[in-house]
Amino acid sequence: MELNLNKHISGQFNEELEQIRNDVLKMGGLVEQQLTNALNAVNNSDQALAKRVLETDYLINRMEVQIDQECTRIIAKRQPAASDLRLVLAIVKTITDLERIGDEAERIAKVALESFNKTQQEFLVSMDNMGRKAIHMLNQVLDAFARMDVDAAFEVHKSDKILDKEYEAITRQLMTYMMEDPRSIPKVMDVFWSVRSLERIGDRCQNISEYVIYFVKGTDVRHTSEKDIQNNVLS
Amino acid sequence: MELNLNKHISGQFNEELEQIRNDVLKMGGLVEQQLTNALNAVNNSDQALAKRVLETDYLINRMEVQIDQECTRIIAKRQPAASDLRLVLAIVKTITDLERIGDEAERIAKVALESFNKTQQEFLVSMDNMGRKAIHMLNQVLDAFARMDVDAAFEVHKSDKILDKEYEAITRQLMTYMMEDPRSIPKVMDVFWSVRSLERIGDRCQNISEYVIYFVKGTDVRHTSEKDIQNNVLS
Repeated sequence: MELNLNKHISGQFNEELEQIRNDVLKMGGLVEQQLTNALNAVNNSDQALAKRVLETDYLINRMEVQIDQECTRIIAKRQPAASDLRLVLAIVKTITDLERIGDEAERIAKVALESFNKTQQEFLVSMDNMGRKAIHMLNQVLDAFARMDVDAAFEVHKSDKILDKEYEAITRQLMTYMMEDPRSIPKVMDVFWSVRSLERIGDRCQNISEYVIYFVKGTDVRHTSEKDIQNNVLS
Repeated sequence: MELNLNKHISGQFNEELEQIRNDVLKMGGLVEQQLTNALNAVNNSDQALAKRVLETDYLINRMEVQIDQECTRIIAKRQPAASDLRLVLAIVKTITDLERIGDEAERIAKVALESFNKTQQEFLVSMDNMGRKAIHMLNQVLDAFARMDVDAAFEVHKSDKILDKEYEAITRQLMTYMMEDPRSIPKVMDVFWSVRSLERIGDRCQNISEYVIYFVKGTDVRHTSEKDIQNNVLS
């Protein structure tokens, strides 16, 4: 999609919009890195890496506050309208979801600080599979955001169903295991929360995909069925 | 707090700002009602009431989209600056949290659709106690928002600790019970998710309290310790 940023009379305004877009992508890259590190830490029982994830989260928080401030400044100073305003507002919302994905990564990393027996490690494998799909979703939605590609965003939106199904399958597995080995419950519950975190990450990627569609098409598609998005917004 | 809305040259602009403030309070009132109904439904095993909660959620979603649209329109048309802009941006964020609280109420209502034995009903009592505190927090933060009262908002912010402690106590109880009666696990897990929902509602009330502080004081206090808020922002 052609962003047509050069239509502005003010070259400086162009630069400012480009800058916050880049900042969002930088923040997104860091969040993706955090999530990848969190999953690797769990997968390899790498406590040092897990601690690094916990120690890095404040950077994401700081980026959220900085980008938000910059968005407010741009609105006040540049008084953007139409698609420029939509871009700024889409960014304000996107960074909230990115920050929360960072929080979920933190929660997942904490699982690496515990030790698991052989059977329990099988769940970690299932969780890892689901986690890779969540990372892929995040990567794809950031890519859709970078190119403001509405079709790519919609693909991400639809792919959340796959993550939801995987979530249900794993939680069933975990419940069965807890029933068979009740002493394992406290430990398995930690895996439970992490799997839940991954499911929420999928929802948040879906949110971001909706902001991309909002920016490009000018239509708020939250709480809209995929069929309606397909038929009434995208075509 | 004196909002000084009458300083605007445009009386119409005043009215528009007043209108979205009222819309937020109306939305907040509906969310509070939904949460109250959800907890009452669980408490009285009232399946009809639970279904009503599930059927009403779409109204909250619709209000979110409408208020958000109106905020965008106001920014584009009125080009607000300073505290007016902060008000509009605080509202954009507040309605997102309110909508999510509505989603959590929906999740809680679903628990009322199941049946529980005598011992399990004890957990519902604990959950209900925690739920009443969550409703109170929501009520108080909406009140702080209505009056833009920064001290009241900070009280809500601090009270989240109490909810967190209660959450930990209940989850420990639930885990012990699951270990003693593993067949109960699937059912108890549903209570688990609801208790988690209540804990998240507390976090979201805390978010809203931060937007009130942001509007009044002009400082973004997300990711800021309560000690720093107290010493550097409020005093």
